[in-house]
This record gives sequence, C-alpha cells and structure tokens, in this order.
Amino acid sequence: MAMKKKPVTGMKDILPREMEIRDYAIGLIKETYKRFGFTSMETPCVEHIENLSSKQGGENEKLIFKILKRGEKLKLTEAETEADLVDGGLRYDLTVPLCRYYSNNANELPSPFKALQMGNVWRADRPQRGRYRQFMQCDIDILGEPTILAEIELILATSTLLGKLDFKKFTIRINDRRILRAMVDYAGFTAPEGETVDYDGIFITLDKMDKIGMEGVREELIGAGYGEETVDRYLELFRKATPDSAGIRLLAEILGDVLPAKISEDLCTIMDTVEGAKEAEFAVAFDPTLVRGMSYYTGPIFEISMDEYGGSVGGGGRYDEMIGRFTGQPTPACGFSIGFERIVMLLLERDFRIPGSEGKTAFLVEKGMPGEKLGQLLKMAKELRSQGAKISIVMMKKNKKFQKEQLTAEGYTEIREFFADREIQ
Amino acid sequence: MAMKKKPVTGMKDILPREMEIRDYAIGLIKETYKRFGFTSMETPCVEHIENLSSKQGGENEKLIFKILKRGEKLKLTEAETEADLVDGGLRYDLTVPLCRYYSNNANELPSPFKALQMGNVWRADRPQRGRYRQFMQCDIDILGEPTILAEIELILATSTLLGKLDFKKFTIRINDRRILRAMVDYAGFTAPEGETVDYDGIFITLDKMDKIGMEGVREELIGAGYGEETVDRYLELFRKATPDSAGIRLLAEILGDVLPAKISEDLCTIMDTVEGAKEAEFAVAFDPTLVRGMSYYTGPIFEISMDEYGGSVGGGGRYDEMIGRFTGQPTPACGFSIGFERIVMLLLERDFRIPGSEGKTAFLVEKGMPGEKLGQLLKMAKELRSQGAKISIVMMKKNKKFQKEQLTAEGYTEIREFFADREIQ
Repeated sequence: MAMKKKPVTGMKDILPREMEIRDYAIGLIKETYKRFGFTSMETPCVEHIENLSSKQGGENEKLIFKILKRGEKLKLTEAETEADLVDGGLRYDLTVPLCRYYSNNANELPSPFKALQMGNVWRADRPQRGRYRQFMQCDIDILGEPTILAEIELILATSTLLGKLDFKKFTIRINDRRILRAMVDYAGFTAPEGETVDYDGIFITLDKMDKIGMEGVREELIGAGYGEETVDRYLELFRKATPDSAGIRLLAEILGDVLPAKISEDLCTIMDTVEGAKEAEFAVAFDPTLVRGMSYYTGPIFEISMDEYGGSVGGGGRYDEMIGRFTGQPTPACGFSIGFERIVMLLLERDFRIPGSEGKTAFLVEKGMPGEKLGQLLKMAKELRSQGAKISIVMMKKNKKFQKEQLTAEGYTEIREFFADREIQ
Repeated sequence: MAMKKKPVTGMKDILPREMEIRDYAIGLIKETYKRFGFTSMETPCVEHIENLSSKQGGENEKLIFKILKRGEKLKLTEAETEADLVDGGLRYDLTVPLCRYYSNNANELPSPFKALQMGNVWRADRPQRGRYRQFMQCDIDILGEPTILAEIELILATSTLLGKLDFKKFTIRINDRRILRAMVDYAGFTAPEGETVDYDGIFITLDKMDKIGMEGVREELIGAGYGEETVDRYLELFRKATPDSAGIRLLAEILGDVLPAKISEDLCTIMDTVEGAKEAEFAVAFDPTLVRGMSYYTGPIFEISMDEYGGSVGGGGRYDEMIGRFTGQPTPACGFSIGFERIVMLLLERDFRIPGSEGKTAFLVEKGMPGEKLGQLLKMAKELRSQGAKISIVMMKKNKKFQKEQLTAEGYTEIREFFADREIQ
C-alpha cells in the first residue's frame, strides 16, 4: 500500500539543519539550568483524561488529542458520548502533569523541588503558519519555596540561558497579581449589588494597552459601564508608575493601605537583586499593565519581550494555590517557561552558528576498495574520531564534483579522497 | 476535583536520579553518533493511522494507541467500527516514520542519508515488570548506501558508543538472511506441491536454539514433518561453523553454488574490518543461528549480547526493500537500534557515576536575610556558576541537620551557610 507521505495535519518533520539547533539548545538549556540546581524530570506524554479535563487548563482543554480505550474496555455499541470511548489524552502542557507527578512522588523528591521539564505537548489548534500541533515546552518550576528566592533564581536562570543563546536586547517585565487587584480596588471600581468586582474583565481590557493605547483602554472601560472618574483615577496610576523599582515604590505610596507593604517591597527586592546579580545583558522592567492570561497566578508574574520577535518568548509566575487544589496539600509554587519553538525559530532565522560545530571531514572512498585498505582507512578514522573529529565516510560517486558541492553545503569543511590503487595516508 | 495521582497504566514518572542518567546517555549518544557523520532528525509522535496499519509493523500493529478524530470529522452516531473513529495513532517504532520522512523530504536530504533518531514510541503491551508502554528508542540508519560500508560504520558507531558508556564484555553477533536461506536450501527442505519452502517457520524453530538446544531444534523440525536426513544435514552445518570469519569461509565452501560468493566474502570483510578498527573492547562473532524476528531484513543482520543482561540490548540489519515498497523508489537501507531503556536500567543497577557530575554546592540562606545581602550572595553564586559550578541556593530550614543530610543524599558535596547578621564571604 502506498504511504501517506506528509506528516499528520499541523505537525512537522524536523530536518537536519533545525535538529542541529534544537539539539544544541536542549543541551545548553539542561547544562545551564543544572548549574542553578534544577533537576530533570519527566512524565508520560499520555495523561489520564480526567486530569486533563479538570478545568485547570482553560481553553486548552478543548484542544486535547484523545486516546481511544483498548481491548474489552472499548464498548463501541454501548458508547453514547465521546467520554465513553476514551481513557487518556496527550498532555497539552507540562504544568498539570507536574502537579500529578509531585503528588505521586513527593516523598522521594527534595524540598524545595527544583524541576526542569523539556517535553512535547499537543494541542489540536487551528493550523497556522509557524504554529504546530506538537511542540516542545521547556519549564522550570520551584515547588515548596514560599519566599522570593524562587522568583529571583527563576529569572536569573532563564536570563542566563538566553544570554548563552546569544540573545541580548531583551526585557523581563514583572508585575504582581496582587498589585493589579489593589490598583482596581484603589480606583474604586464597583460591581452591581450582590456581585464581586469583575477583576478579570478589567484585566482583559488592560491587557490590550500595547495594542489600543491608554485612550483605547479608557473608552473600553467606560463603554463597559464604569464611571469616568473611576477609570481616570485608575489610568492615572499607570501614567505615574515608572518602569523601575522607584515606580513600584511610588505606586505603593499612592495605594497606601490597599496594598500590604511586603508585596511592593518584595517586588522591588526581586528587581534590584536580579539587576545586581544578572549574568546576561538585559533589562528588568516593572510593567503595571502586565496581566498574564492564566487566572491561577497568585503573586509575582513575569514575561520576556524581545525586540527581534514581536510577542512574548516566555513567561511565568507564582501559583501558590494550584498544587494544593489538586493534592489537598498546600504547596507554594513558582515557574518560568520559555518558548522553545520561538527561540529555535529565531536562531534559524538569524542563521545561528553553533559554537564548535566547525570542522566536519568527509572521506570519499573509491568503489572497489579492497577490504584490507578499507580497514586501514577506518583505523585512521578511529584515531581521529577518538580525538574528537567528526568524520563521515561515504562512497565516491560518479559525479564527484556535485558530491563535493553537496558535502560543502552540508557543512563539511574538509574532503579527503581515497583510491583503491593508492596508499592510505 | 481530586486528581488521579498515578501515571496512566503501564507508563512511568521518571525520577531525578534516572533522569540524570538518561540525560547523560542521550548527550553521549548524540555526540558519539555525530562523530560518525550521523545527523539528528525527528518525526511527529502522532502518525497517520493508515501508515501504522500497513502490515510493516507485524505484531506491533495490534498494540497501537489510537487517536480519536476531532470536531466535525468525528461522527459518533454513524460510526460502525473503530476505524471510523480514529485518524491517527502514536508511533510504535521509528522505522515506519523514517520511511515516511524519507519519502517526504528526500530532495532536501543528503545521499546517503545517515539518520539518528531518538524518540519515544508507544505500545499497548500487557504491563510487566521493567517493560513500559512508553519507551525511548534510539536508531541509526543509513539510507542510500548499498555497500557494506553501511554495516561497518553502523557496527563501529554502536560499539564505540557502548564502550563510552563503560560497557565492556559484549558481543556483536552477525549473520546474513541470505546465508540463513542458503543453509535451508542446501539441506534440501521441501514444501508440499505448489507451495514454497516455509523458511520463516524453520527460522522460528532455529531461533530457539539457545533455549532448547540442538536436540530440541532437531525434534521440533522432525515433528513439523521434515525428514530426519534433511534435518541432520541442516544441523550438521551449525556444528561445523565456528564463530569467526573462518567459520563463514568453511560454510561458504560447503554451501558452494547455493550461496553467491560475494555474500560470504562481504560478511567476512565486515567482521575483519570491524575487528581491526574497533575502538571499544568487544567481540564480533559469526552466529549462523541468529535470525532476528522482522521479516523485512534482506542481508546482513546483527545483534548485541551482553553478559550483564540476559537478552539482546540492540540489533539491526539491512532492509533494502522496505522503503521502495512504501515510496515506489528502491532505496538501500541499513539500521542499528540500541535498547535505550535496557541500557539505562543496567547503568542504574550498577550505580553508574556520571563523569564530571561531582562538586554540587548548596548555599543555605538564613530566613530574613536583607535584600542587599541576598544580592551579594547571588553575585558570588553568579561568578562561580559562570566558571561552571553547580550551585543550588535554598532557604535554611529549622531542622538544619536533617536538611544537610538530605542535600548530601542528593549529591551535594559542599554545603555553605549564610546568616542574616554576618558578612557574605
């Protein structure tokens, strides 16, 4: 039977050139994060369908690749709904499996547990350019550390890594979910009687600041029924807050009792400490408009912006309540995820040269070379390889000129020819 | 909602200690194979269900994790069979996806294409100790190389890798599917009129030689209806063939015209060349009883035996007809696969020490350390980390003695304490 040649819809074959960059990035990520005391861990790609459908995943839960039950458990004629047919699904992120892993293995894990996960996740999103249905995620998380030491180490580790990947002009923007809420409280937003203030609705509008500007946000909030005075009082805060720790302090002064002092002090300490101990060239900026989509965040949040790339190339924050909700055991947690696929894409686009990847050698062997001579040649290759050389031995083709051009294009900088009737040397 | 804490049936959470070994092995495998000119490639974990059900996978096709269609394509009420419900499956090996990949991308790939694949595969096998339903495979394949240079390089690369992983006493046993058939022909096995000789049936019996012995094989073949004289003539060949290239030559002499001379000469050249150019300490042995299960092999076959481990820890061979059957374009191919999970298991059992993994340092920070001092401490850590040190900074616990014991158990060889009221130095 003829085969379907293309990969399944929305997923891709990865060619050697991209793989080289991926392998290099994966190696560097593991090495760098291990220097910060993170340890690798892994969960199966298949997860219980119940765990994937527990409402932690938001919109992603609609995008699950579901796995059919097998054997006797699959009762095709009795099945009434999709749920009767499936018992597993491909994970759509690494955070839900991390919670399960931690609750399953906490006794055997150190405390705090500094986890490094690199793994594929799957989402049946509408296919679009540059976005795939299988992609690699790269997360570091610190579980069991309630202090800002977690935030500081996560930001330092991530920025050091980006620096090693030769990224320079990037900014890590930080904010705190509790400051976001305090600003709403201070401005005096109200809710219809019997309801609570719609923080998330206000944040969704605020999140559009970079697209629609301050004036656009103002119009949208007033359009949603909030009083002009409240909205202006709210937006005035953003005008005053400079993107540094002085901005945080000024804001804290204005907000007064609405914001407990420890929250703003901690955020300042995170900024100042990172600024003082950073290894890479980048900026840390306070951004009171930073929202982060997921509602599970409870404290500091952060996001990486890069000039080369319009959007975010990573982000994270503190989510102290999530693990407890799953396991019944309250566990402080904080994580930082980098957009591995975007980083690979950026490296590919700028034709990134992998350090130490030079110096591949090709040995061209004439057809009909006697076994004994071939043996000599392989012994020579052995010596060179054991000293670290990269050598590919291939048969010489009729169109040798074309073959050499091809090898050069593949990155072979030295090409040596060996003939059946000449000495091997 | 409470979460299911265990991983799905038959799959496992991988703990830090095992991950350390896996990460190390993966790094070493990629580095070693790249020295032999192999390039990484990757296919999606999800494959078209049609490609997975094309009869190339043998028994594995019964063990597929199938993926439910999504959206409008899923017609639950109209579906009559399983096939109506699914459009994809998790790959059960890396060879079928390699064929698809090669046919999809051949124009952009070098010729010969020396592929390195490391990736998870899934099989819904009956769960049993030490065997999991998700496991990593590690394959190297050379596509487009018809000569024994392919076999030689595959064996040298694989054995060099095993040597680097500190395996010594292993044997690579080799044989050739065409010798296997010639021996059957020579002995004079016959088939009922109108049928062809049941080579595969005879090989299944032969394959049991190490379990049931020569006498057991004899009984089984006679029991299957073959004449005593034929069977004895067949088994006599195995008695005569010594496990070296002299054995191949002797066998070739006896078989005469039944076996084209080039086949035995090539196998001798493979053995002699590998013996002469090998980097690791291991033996190459001719084993005329070596069968290898898969019927797609067409030429030389090989398998790794290791004293430490009863069974095979890897194997491969030439499969010149498989890719053409899929793509319509005949392509010579030869591959070698190592049992990654078995190798990791062996390294774990012998408490393998990863070279260069010593020297992890823990910084214990007293609670309430002022931000400025924390900054100094992080700066110091930065300097040491940038010189290659592995440092984990953690808050000091009330039970410091227990904390230190735990850190020592995790492999921290140096533990430094920093107090809020003392100088950082």
